[in-house]
Amino acid sequence: MAVPGERSGRLAVYDAPNAPFEIRRFPVRPPRRGEVLVKIRMSTICRSDIHSYLGHRPNPCPGVLGHEIIGTIVELGEGITHDMRGAPLAAGDRITWSEYFIPGPNYCTEVLDLPQKSPGVEKYGHMAVTQDPHHHGGFGDYCYVLPQSWILKLPAELTDEEATPINCGVATMMCVTERAGIGMGDAVVVQGLGLLGLYGAAIAKARGARLVIGLDTVAARRELGAKFGVDHALDPASMDEAGLVATVRALCQPEGADVVLEVCGSPEVVASGIRFLRNGGRYVLGGVVNPDAFVSIDVNQILRKLITLRGVHNYHPRNLIEALDFVQANRKRFPFHDLVDGKYRLEEIGRAFKDAGERRVLRAAIVP
Amino acid sequence: MAVPGERSGRLAVYDAPNAPFEIRRFPVRPPRRGEVLVKIRMSTICRSDIHSYLGHRPNPCPGVLGHEIIGTIVELGEGITHDMRGAPLAAGDRITWSEYFIPGPNYCTEVLDLPQKSPGVEKYGHMAVTQDPHHHGGFGDYCYVLPQSWILKLPAELTDEEATPINCGVATMMCVTERAGIGMGDAVVVQGLGLLGLYGAAIAKARGARLVIGLDTVAARRELGAKFGVDHALDPASMDEAGLVATVRALCQPEGADVVLEVCGSPEVVASGIRFLRNGGRYVLGGVVNPDAFVSIDVNQILRKLITLRGVHNYHPRNLIEALDFVQANRKRFPFHDLVDGKYRLEEIGRAFKDAGERRVLRAAIVP
Amino acid sequence: MAVPGERSGRLAVYDAPNAPFEIRRFPVRPPRRGEVLVKIRMSTICRSDIHSYLGHRPNPCPGVLGHEIIGTIVELGEGITHDMRGAPLAAGDRITWSEYFIPGPNYCTEVLDLPQKSPGVEKYGHMAVTQDPHHHGGFGDYCYVLPQSWILKLPAELTDEEATPINCGVATMMCVTERAGIGMGDAVVVQGLGLLGLYGAAIAKARGARLVIGLDTVAARRELGAKFGVDHALDPASMDEAGLVATVRALCQPEGADVVLEVCGSPEVVASGIRFLRNGGRYVLGGVVNPDAFVSIDVNQILRKLITLRGVHNYHPRNLIEALDFVQANRKRFPFHDLVDGKYRLEEIGRAFKDAGERRVLRAAIVP
Amino acid sequence: MAVPGERSGRLAVYDAPNAPFEIRRFPVRPPRRGEVLVKIRMSTICRSDIHSYLGHRPNPCPGVLGHEIIGTIVELGEGITHDMRGAPLAAGDRITWSEYFIPGPNYCTEVLDLPQKSPGVEKYGHMAVTQDPHHHGGFGDYCYVLPQSWILKLPAELTDEEATPINCGVATMMCVTERAGIGMGDAVVVQGLGLLGLYGAAIAKARGARLVIGLDTVAARRELGAKFGVDHALDPASMDEAGLVATVRALCQPEGADVVLEVCGSPEVVASGIRFLRNGGRYVLGGVVNPDAFVSIDVNQILRKLITLRGVHNYHPRNLIEALDFVQANRKRFPFHDLVDGKYRLEEIGRAFKDAGERRVLRAAIVP
Repeated sequence: MAVPGERSGRLAVYDAPNAPFEIRRFPVRPPRRGEVLVKIRMSTICRSDIHSYLGHRPNPCPGVLGHEIIGTIVELGEGITHDMRGAPLAAGDRITWSEYFIPGPNYCTEVLDLPQKSPGVEKYGHMAVTQDPHHHGGFGDYCYVLPQSWILKLPAELTDEEATPINCGVATMMCVTERAGIGMGDAVVVQGLGLLGLYGAAIAKARGARLVIGLDTVAARRELGAKFGVDHALDPASMDEAGLVATVRALCQPEGADVVLEVCGSPEVVASGIRFLRNGGRYVLGGVVNPDAFVSIDVNQILRKLITLRGVHNYHPRNLIEALDFVQANRKRFPFHDLVDGKYRLEEIGRAFKDAGERRVLRAAIVP
Repeated sequence: MAVPGERSGRLAVYDAPNAPFEIRRFPVRPPRRGEVLVKIRMSTICRSDIHSYLGHRPNPCPGVLGHEIIGTIVELGEGITHDMRGAPLAAGDRITWSEYFIPGPNYCTEVLDLPQKSPGVEKYGHMAVTQDPHHHGGFGDYCYVLPQSWILKLPAELTDEEATPINCGVATMMCVTERAGIGMGDAVVVQGLGLLGLYGAAIAKARGARLVIGLDTVAARRELGAKFGVDHALDPASMDEAGLVATVRALCQPEGADVVLEVCGSPEVVASGIRFLRNGGRYVLGGVVNPDAFVSIDVNQILRKLITLRGVHNYHPRNLIEALDFVQANRKRFPFHDLVDGKYRLEEIGRAFKDAGERRVLRAAIVP
Repeated sequence: MAVPGERSGRLAVYDAPNAPFEIRRFPVRPPRRGEVLVKIRMSTICRSDIHSYLGHRPNPCPGVLGHEIIGTIVELGEGITHDMRGAPLAAGDRITWSEYFIPGPNYCTEVLDLPQKSPGVEKYGHMAVTQDPHHHGGFGDYCYVLPQSWILKLPAELTDEEATPINCGVATMMCVTERAGIGMGDAVVVQGLGLLGLYGAAIAKARGARLVIGLDTVAARRELGAKFGVDHALDPASMDEAGLVATVRALCQPEGADVVLEVCGSPEVVASGIRFLRNGGRYVLGGVVNPDAFVSIDVNQILRKLITLRGVHNYHPRNLIEALDFVQANRKRFPFHDLVDGKYRLEEIGRAFKDAGERRVLRAAIVP
Repeated sequence: MAVPGERSGRLAVYDAPNAPFEIRRFPVRPPRRGEVLVKIRMSTICRSDIHSYLGHRPNPCPGVLGHEIIGTIVELGEGITHDMRGAPLAAGDRITWSEYFIPGPNYCTEVLDLPQKSPGVEKYGHMAVTQDPHHHGGFGDYCYVLPQSWILKLPAELTDEEATPINCGVATMMCVTERAGIGMGDAVVVQGLGLLGLYGAAIAKARGARLVIGLDTVAARRELGAKFGVDHALDPASMDEAGLVATVRALCQPEGADVVLEVCGSPEVVASGIRFLRNGGRYVLGGVVNPDAFVSIDVNQILRKLITLRGVHNYHPRNLIEALDFVQANRKRFPFHDLVDGKYRLEEIGRAFKDAGERRVLRAAIVP
């Protein structure tokens, strides 16, 4: 597909859900006004990439996936000179950027301060590869940072493994914990100790939580929890619901959990989540990202216990800054680097998705 | 039951759910420390009285119901000299008081500022009539205001009809609208135009809402809505859910409702309530007070739309003050007096419950 | 200055502080991308216009003043098709727009949600008339709405007098009362009953305040207060500070004022303002807009009473929407129309400034 | 003064400001209902003890000072069986308790949730020693915990040095940082690196601050800062105000400090504190506890920068719990034990006050 003499780059393309990835070349043109052309250093496979690939939720095909990306600036388009907090940008700089970009000023952004819900918002790794400029996903050689994205220069001390999940996993959990109002002295329950749950535990501690209880059926994840601020890791499959609720509440003296975070993607955990909470407790849904996540809830319990139940999808630009600062400030307290525990070349993407899908690795990285 | 020469008073007692009310006499003793003996002027029948009487929720029997009460002070117990904001109290003063009282200082009250959820909290009209001092419900001649209640002197200008619902219906809706964060310019949907819904609409307007949409299947209530701040009253039975959602959203330009209040008691309205909301909207449950209010909810919608869903049960003492001030300040703007549209003598309580239960009256009052 | 055959318009220009206004013609060109060309219907003279004209604060000269403006669309520039909440715009529509515009996306706007403090923010009526497109103030025939302003279509029912102050006086007070957290049942003191104070009193009532006390030394303003929600209008010059504090506090039973709003522009009122407040009360500065407003404050009082003292400058775009909705919803409750009590042709602007400066009128309007 | 055969205890009494302390015996009676008799283990000298002793603020004489106290339960009065979060209490338990107690339920506590400002609130170490039960200050053998105090059992792992400042220094800074809204990613400036400042820096970090700048003229305190979370310790006497402001702002890229905390007691630092802040920043006064702390402020700067300035005095009961949890959770991260760097027997109290007053020690402890 590349014209001789013209620059081009590889992309890992899938033509339909579950179809094998194929490495194809697409032309690389100079960045236009407001764009940045980036040479990708690393992209990690998010759980939502796997959902898309498996067809659990709609995504345009033939597609290029990947939105947890970092890379090095090749060329800056006109009008892009600084990152979102004013640091100058130049070719060679290593950057991260928001997983989404917006079509321009709009009511959601300007009046409601919810840019992440702008009509027409688009996400990297969620567009058909045929759509210009082709390179808008993480699994390839290049990516264009498109206009109305939020860019941050990465400090030199961060490893690629620490930096790559910042723009999705970490920033999302920054928003989830913000909406949960986690503060000094809170007792927090995290339902699911995947990447989101581990970052969530660590951020809860960094916001002052006195106690974090993590729930996961996978023993290896429960063990990992201790390194990320989890004080008690419980296996919800090892007891019945009443026993689980009693155990959690006994740990959260005197009144039950202040906060519960759902980051496991299973709607059916909501009922026990509500039972963990004290009167006036807060519950944030961060994992149930697939459509039609129906579950039966006793809304009288929400009323009677004065529960606040909130959802979080995407994040605010400020959360991206906070995520970067958090990782930088806490990299010696929590071993973020180790979370990216599988590295694959672009050609190995099929195996990477298989390993990630079957949870043989916590976070698989593609290093083109 | 009364000893000759001793003061006594009548109470309307029911021995079991659905059993006929009987008027019985119980002795009246001087108020003890922290108590106030009150001669009842009016008590209104709250929907929850009907639920209790019908056995839809547990209540001790033989019981005396009634918690929306006002009365005149007969005698002040030791230690009670002023109302909750410092006005002196004396025999003859007309007062209202919180529908609940607490057993004393506790963690819920002092640390969480949730006195309404204190362990051991008790409510007027929710105790067995055999329990001292017998007179602790609204449907009788006397009531003791028990220690750790919150008392407010009533201004002379308020009619009994305006004053009686303050300590339950109005204060509850003050809390519901507070938790919903209703403020300047909000578009608010009220699901259910019973007493709570009508007060809710009026309070929403008094908090600055630009638009109130009321939903009720009863035509008379929809008509009444206009007098209480409802701009558009819709019959949810007149269209399918998609049509209802589209109609409501079209009225809430540009983005859907900011707030939805559930005050109809039907869990099944929650799903459409969520669909009315804009991204970032708030939903407060105020009516689903009966146990086991299960309903199937798509929690992905809560996540994706960044919804906040909260419950309210009872109210904070400050809401009682706000409720009184609101009624006093807005009594010419909204015809609160007319909401109490049926008056019955104590002996007629059976008929009063029947009329109220069959919604022949909006609020039935017992005037002993 | 107008080329023959080319469209031109008049502007009232002043060459230096206190120099007489002169009516000059400047060319009118088609609006560029993102601009709207507007034929001015009415502009009112804000107190800050007078400060600028008198040289109390720096403003570029030769200048054209006026930022409280409404007008009719003559021509829409490319890219401008709808107002800020999605209503379509067309030539002939009557509109209002934010008194300021910003240079583009920036950290203040996107991360802090403070567009009104964007570096490089500019205000209508605050630029040299020599700067393209010349027509960027209110006192003339035309005005260009410049890119990154916020536009709202005006409903037909509003009179020009009701509509003109929306984008400055009303929106500012919407922000002031928002930052003061005025809500249900608050006792509010307003220091100064000029235009800002009168709108502030009315908005406080519309947000649920139970009591508004207004302070002003001008009897006519105190009298006007009653029509705009002021329950008690006091003359601070009629008693000493101790007496004033005692009087205000006696009106705010049981604990002093919940909120004090400074909208008189005199720093020296801050000390008594703090004394009006209850423990935990809030004080918002909205009027002290001139530089070097030094005043001696006992900061121990702020500490000991747990006071919150905040400043407000300009407003958030959402406040403009709220301001319009508020005026529309409350125009029968409060006589906003009458606040514009002096109307002048463009040629009479000198007299208008004189009358306004000497407080012979409350709000002077220029109708070109 | 002790009757033979009766239990008695020593108290360090001063008869007038600056008069030498004398050790006198007072009788010890059994605790009454709601009281707890405690054998004191340690009391530390707070800066406010020194202010009182020096006569900088009024305190009843002959007096017994000391309110940062821990001790062991000798005997529980009737009605006291558990600590504030439900842990059972028994003789021999080591406890801390609120530095203040309230006279009973009141509007401030129950409606405003400000128990610390209850009318009639009293503080340990602030009563005349002649007042029953004499032992109500920290500098003696015994102390009565009086009714309506808040008690917490101390975990065994805490040293006395870690535990003693919890009920004053730590809890106060918990409240100061709460009111400042310190959260994830904030840049915080602490004016004064005494005990409050050092705890404040540590708590700011524990709440997620990305950067803490400490200001103090004493080199030893600046050096200590690094152990308590201070990233940059500056000497404000080493440069002029413009230089200091420029230095601080340069460290708080891109926009100035999010938060400034005043804990040095000098009103004159407020002006530069405001200049450190970004637009929309928050300033909390925690140190200016002496009356008549007048300072000249340019309130236009507060307006123009949208500053929030708040005061904090005493703390909420929840802050006491948070303070204990914070010290327990962070005792390995920050060397709290070392802050109590001088220990004195009761007889040495005069020297202790001298050393503390002349800042030869950071926190002097009396160990009776």
